[in-house]
Amino acid sequence: MNIHPIYDKMLSRSEREKALHQKSMVLWFTGLSGSGKSTIAVALERELYSRGYVAQVLDGDNIRHGINSNLGFSIEDRRENIRRIAEIAKLFMQSGIVTICSFISPTLEIRQMAREIIGEQDFFEIFVDTPLEICEQRDVKGLYQKARAGQITGFTGIDSPYEAPVNPDLQIKTANQELAHSVRAALEFTLEKIKHY
Amino acid sequence: MNIHPIYDKMLSRSEREKALHQKSMVLWFTGLSGSGKSTIAVALERELYSRGYVAQVLDGDNIRHGINSNLGFSIEDRRENIRRIAEIAKLFMQSGIVTICSFISPTLEIRQMAREIIGEQDFFEIFVDTPLEICEQRDVKGLYQKARAGQITGFTGIDSPYEAPVNPDLQIKTANQELAHSVRAALEFTLEKIKHY
Repeated sequence: MNIHPIYDKMLSRSEREKALHQKSMVLWFTGLSGSGKSTIAVALERELYSRGYVAQVLDGDNIRHGINSNLGFSIEDRRENIRRIAEIAKLFMQSGIVTICSFISPTLEIRQMAREIIGEQDFFEIFVDTPLEICEQRDVKGLYQKARAGQITGFTGIDSPYEAPVNPDLQIKTANQELAHSVRAALEFTLEKIKHY
Repeated sequence: MNIHPIYDKMLSRSEREKALHQKSMVLWFTGLSGSGKSTIAVALERELYSRGYVAQVLDGDNIRHGINSNLGFSIEDRRENIRRIAEIAKLFMQSGIVTICSFISPTLEIRQMAREIIGEQDFFEIFVDTPLEICEQRDVKGLYQKARAGQITGFTGIDSPYEAPVNPDLQIKTANQELAHSVRAALEFTLEKIKHY
């Protein structure tokens, strides 16, 4: 078995991107609970894989129950939650992977922190813009009902503010279009960027 | 542009492994500072890439300065350091990637915690077994000298214990062999496992 000359340096991001035939980036999906952001993110991941690309969704399911299981919902903990997510997204991105984050991330300040950790040129904000009324109608997880009943407090859109992105890189309005259209919009956006490795 | 039928489920680890043509796992390198574990880990990463596999080293360089920058060196913080690392390694592994962790991780208890987070069947302990005298002779970063002079306290091997693995999956004795031999041992170990996806 042949071993190459050894030099003590981790593979660079650009070496990884070349090997994977893709430019890596962080796609940061923001929007209300029930806006459809995770559904679109997960579908985007599958579409990328089916085209031979390597992507990874980070969302509440794989983050809150694992690395961030020791965080609560105080303002400080919410900040630390997003800080860690952004740092993990950066690790995946530096690994050459198209990293798709799907988190409500309700405030301009919190998303700005994520942008600064990841780096301006690698951070793309995707606003899944679904009106509160529609999210509340869908209420897939029954959370809005609980929030209205006061069983959950600090719920974004009900008794905690959501600050919409001012100038998102992509805005997806899910209210009046089929899901497949929303996914196509995210996919077209990504494919245009993925080729510049 | 064709969009597949959408179903709301993240790609599974086994779908990812198939797409990447590899079994994912966590290789956990443990050993003293200066034992050579990161050098071997980084060389292994390159060897795997050159064979078309996807791997990622996690070590102090990309972890301590990023996600764990808010941790110190108290016992509690060292534990949280390793807990977060193990959770991140698990995310990478679930992403289908051969994940190579290189951390002193000095105690049986701390490595047991990592093993439990990652899962017994996916965690492989690689002991880079270099005698303290040799690590101290090398002293690449000048840390042993500082520890001996009392400028650093709690330094593993000097005034803080290192508990050697009892039954490591692989033991690499670097003292009497060339680095290329050590890398080959790690590579052979990994290639044997990587094919069972």
